[in-house]
Amino acid sequence: MLGNTYDNQTCSIARTLELIGERWTILIIRDAFLGVRRFDEFQRSLGVARNVLQGRLERLVENGILERVRYQERPERFEYRLTEKGLDLWPVVVSLLSWGDRHAAPEGPPVLLEHRGCGGRVNDRRICETCGALLGPRDVKARLGVAPRGPHEPVQPALASR
Amino acid sequence: MLGNTYDNQTCSIARTLELIGERWTILIIRDAFLGVRRFDEFQRSLGVARNVLQGRLERLVENGILERVRYQERPERFEYRLTEKGLDLWPVVVSLLSWGDRHAAPEGPPVLLEHRGCGGRVNDRRICETCGALLGPRDVKARLGVAPRGPHEPVQPALASR
Repeated sequence: MLGNTYDNQTCSIARTLELIGERWTILIIRDAFLGVRRFDEFQRSLGVARNVLQGRLERLVENGILERVRYQERPERFEYRLTEKGLDLWPVVVSLLSWGDRHAAPEGPPVLLEHRGCGGRVNDRRICETCGALLGPRDVKARLGVAPRGPHEPVQPALASR
Repeated sequence: MLGNTYDNQTCSIARTLELIGERWTILIIRDAFLGVRRFDEFQRSLGVARNVLQGRLERLVENGILERVRYQERPERFEYRLTEKGLDLWPVVVSLLSWGDRHAAPEGPPVLLEHRGCGGRVNDRRICETCGALLGPRDVKARLGVAPRGPHEPVQPALASR
């Protein structure tokens, strides 16, 4: 955990990293934006140890980025949803995605962001390249781009909807 | 280091975090955007152990995010400069800064970004709020906002230039 080591930094970037800079945390937030809500779904998506995942989720709830909501009474079951504070992390997620697409995706972007309204591509300013709308996370859907593939697998058809 | 633990993630966000997700790395990049270039300056700004800093800088050079440039011959002295690939991380830095200003800066933003051209504030889409220009890192300067203060210190005057 990054926590206290950044304490001497009076800086909004350092403070943000104190809250979301731990290993896995940003990928949990990414999954939450893709619609993942339940513990087992996060676990399957990330392949991370359950105790690590539990710790990260609890910390995100403590910090008001996720909320834990009961979705079933008997037996009690809970899911994790982004709060408004969590939804405000969308620019961070999009900026990391855009840089990786440009500099760390030699086979092409694994995921494409698309404006729900008109189907346009979403640029790194979260503006629709087709209609020019300023987009929030609820205006955008993710589609598979170039599918993951091993060395001997053919490329999967693009644009499977997610 | 995050490295291999994200290997099963075909995701541009995970790949970006493999390159910049280590502790301190994003703060090194932040400092580079603020004009820090020399090892001792980074060390003073971050207060991080020299061997840790050395490792982070070397990895950023290996990954083409910083370049190591000789600025003096006798004795040889080197400095670190953002490459174009590194400059492309500006949206990541701005999005982390903006979120922290909104959610983790109760006393106000420690640093303000300002459009060099017209003095307007820079919003989280990197658009000038005064003139509407789409801004890159070279178009913007950082100014001190609310200065750091201890519990018994008065607030420093805002807008000292950085």
